Amino acid sequence: VGIGDDAAVLRVEKRPLVWTIDAQVEGVHFRRAWLSLADIGARSFHAAASDLAAMGARPVAALSSLVVPEAMSARDVVRLARGQAMAARELSCPIVGGNLSRGGELGVTTTLLGAASTPLLRSGARPGDELWLIGHLGLAAAGLGWLAAHDADGRRDRRVTPATDRPRAPSLAPAERRAVRAALAAFRRPHALVRAGRGLAGRARAAIDVSDGLAADAARLADESGVRVVVERAALRRALSPELFTMARLLETDALELAVSGGEDYALLATGEASRRPRFARPIGRVEPGRNALLRDEQGALIPLVGGFDHFRLKRRSAR
Amino acid sequence: VGIGDDAAVLRVEKRPLVWTIDAQVEGVHFRRAWLSLADIGARSFHAAASDLAAMGARPVAALSSLVVPEAMSARDVVRLARGQAMAARELSCPIVGGNLSRGGELGVTTTLLGAASTPLLRSGARPGDELWLIGHLGLAAAGLGWLAAHDADGRRDRRVTPATDRPRAPSLAPAERRAVRAALAAFRRPHALVRAGRGLAGRARAAIDVSDGLAADAARLADESGVRVVVERAALRRALSPELFTMARLLETDALELAVSGGEDYALLATGEASRRPRFARPIGRVEPGRNALLRDEQGALIPLVGGFDHFRLKRRSAR
Repeated sequence: VGIGDDAAVLRVEKRPLVWTIDAQVEGVHFRRAWLSLADIGARSFHAAASDLAAMGARPVAALSSLVVPEAMSARDVVRLARGQAMAARELSCPIVGGNLSRGGELGVTTTLLGAASTPLLRSGARPGDELWLIGHLGLAAAGLGWLAAHDADGRRDRRVTPATDRPRAPSLAPAERRAVRAALAAFRRPHALVRAGRGLAGRARAAIDVSDGLAADAARLADESGVRVVVERAALRRALSPELFTMARLLETDALELAVSGGEDYALLATGEASRRPRFARPIGRVEPGRNALLRDEQGALIPLVGGFDHFRLKRRSAR
Repeated sequence: VGIGDDAAVLRVEKRPLVWTIDAQVEGVHFRRAWLSLADIGARSFHAAASDLAAMGARPVAALSSLVVPEAMSARDVVRLARGQAMAARELSCPIVGGNLSRGGELGVTTTLLGAASTPLLRSGARPGDELWLIGHLGLAAAGLGWLAAHDADGRRDRRVTPATDRPRAPSLAPAERRAVRAALAAFRRPHALVRAGRGLAGRARAAIDVSDGLAADAARLADESGVRVVVERAALRRALSPELFTMARLLETDALELAVSGGEDYALLATGEASRRPRFARPIGRVEPGRNALLRDEQGALIPLVGGFDHFRLKRRSAR
């Protein structure tokens, strides 16, 4: 039984259920000037699904709760819901119910149920494990940085089509244009790595999704597992995409800084025995006895891995 | 696995799961001037649980997503969470995870999973059924009305204890004081009728919780079942509490008006064969062929049952 009754009714398999909730709030998680309503709907769904991906779970069903300001029309709500529906189709995870309420600022809260025979926890990392990266780091932050640098007044209309996102500077080379497009796509339409997460189950010992930046989420993994997580700078650099280096140059910043501090890529960080590393995972470090997340430079020196965004401390990222 | 990982992990029985989400937003669903933070936490939890009660389900676990304005301290968040925890204990439904985010206005979104061997739907009412009321109608609206009339500037501090809620007018009789206290309690600390809902399962054919007022929710039941729902005025009047009549007199309004239009009592409305009516349910009408929700007066004339609050149409209730 889906939308329309007091609650949704589901028949589920007996395997453990994995359950998450995620809220995306206007002015905190997104600016409407830089995202279409469909983007907002799709990315909020993928953000919630990313938590299931990090548990090695298959999404089964979703509920959505929208808080809608007076200024938004019913058609606007439909545009947003279309983005949610598109994400739900991509992830084969139907939206079976929800809730609609007025409020002063747009908010999209998504709760997802998933199934996993052996859920991957944050607490399973052991000294000796390799540290694996799945997906891209830093590109979403680069897309956000590009928007902030080229559209600082935030007047971008939601009806503007992706074609107009082409950088205005006519001097960009084709590879630079491709990098900008990739970065904007990473920011606007992140993808939860559900398939990779399921591929990790049974191979990895621990996993977390990188929603708040590598530094913040590697530290959480270290903390929950009671270990030290060491990212090797040379290995991390090798794992970054060419588009990220191009974007770093265009934004006059460092690719590693974007990768370590930038959030919302929804990459996965996992640990496991080297011999069990799946092909889609790139080794970027090691798990050692101790605590905290550190960066080991090319000379072997350990330096703090800093940056990123901790929602629990309720700070806003400055770029917003 | 509970709070602290990317998602919660649950082992559930095989029976159908019932799943709901509910959002309570400052300025729309509540005013902080009239509720303590613990009230806001507790009532948001019961509001969500009421959807499960209406399905005849037993709550199993909850996730909570809080949107917290900058002006709220960590201690304020703890106060609110204590109200949620109290409700969770009352309903034997642990909060196993959640999400915390900044935002411009306080928002509490709760998602609950429940179990029901035979979920009660809104669509099961059949002509010939009796219409049953479980719980009280109108008292929460009377409590809200009392606050609006006696504290219109909304300056009530959240630290004010219930003792100060005693009406200031010294001329109130003891029965009037009791009625005011009952109305304020109904408004501030509603209780989801989970036990009654489970008692309805297997006896009732359809059920809905009365969150937006009898008129609005009876119309939804009629609509979903493709029937006419007729509330008999004399029977409804007999089902109302003495406190409601006292409050109606104090507020210079009509008890029936409060009962028909007032929301947030979280009573249950159900239909079923008269012979199967549980002792805790009071008959207040009948299900007939046709459509819409109507009121039959003491002379047998049918008049529209109007009032209540339709969130989907995104109107604010004037009393807020």
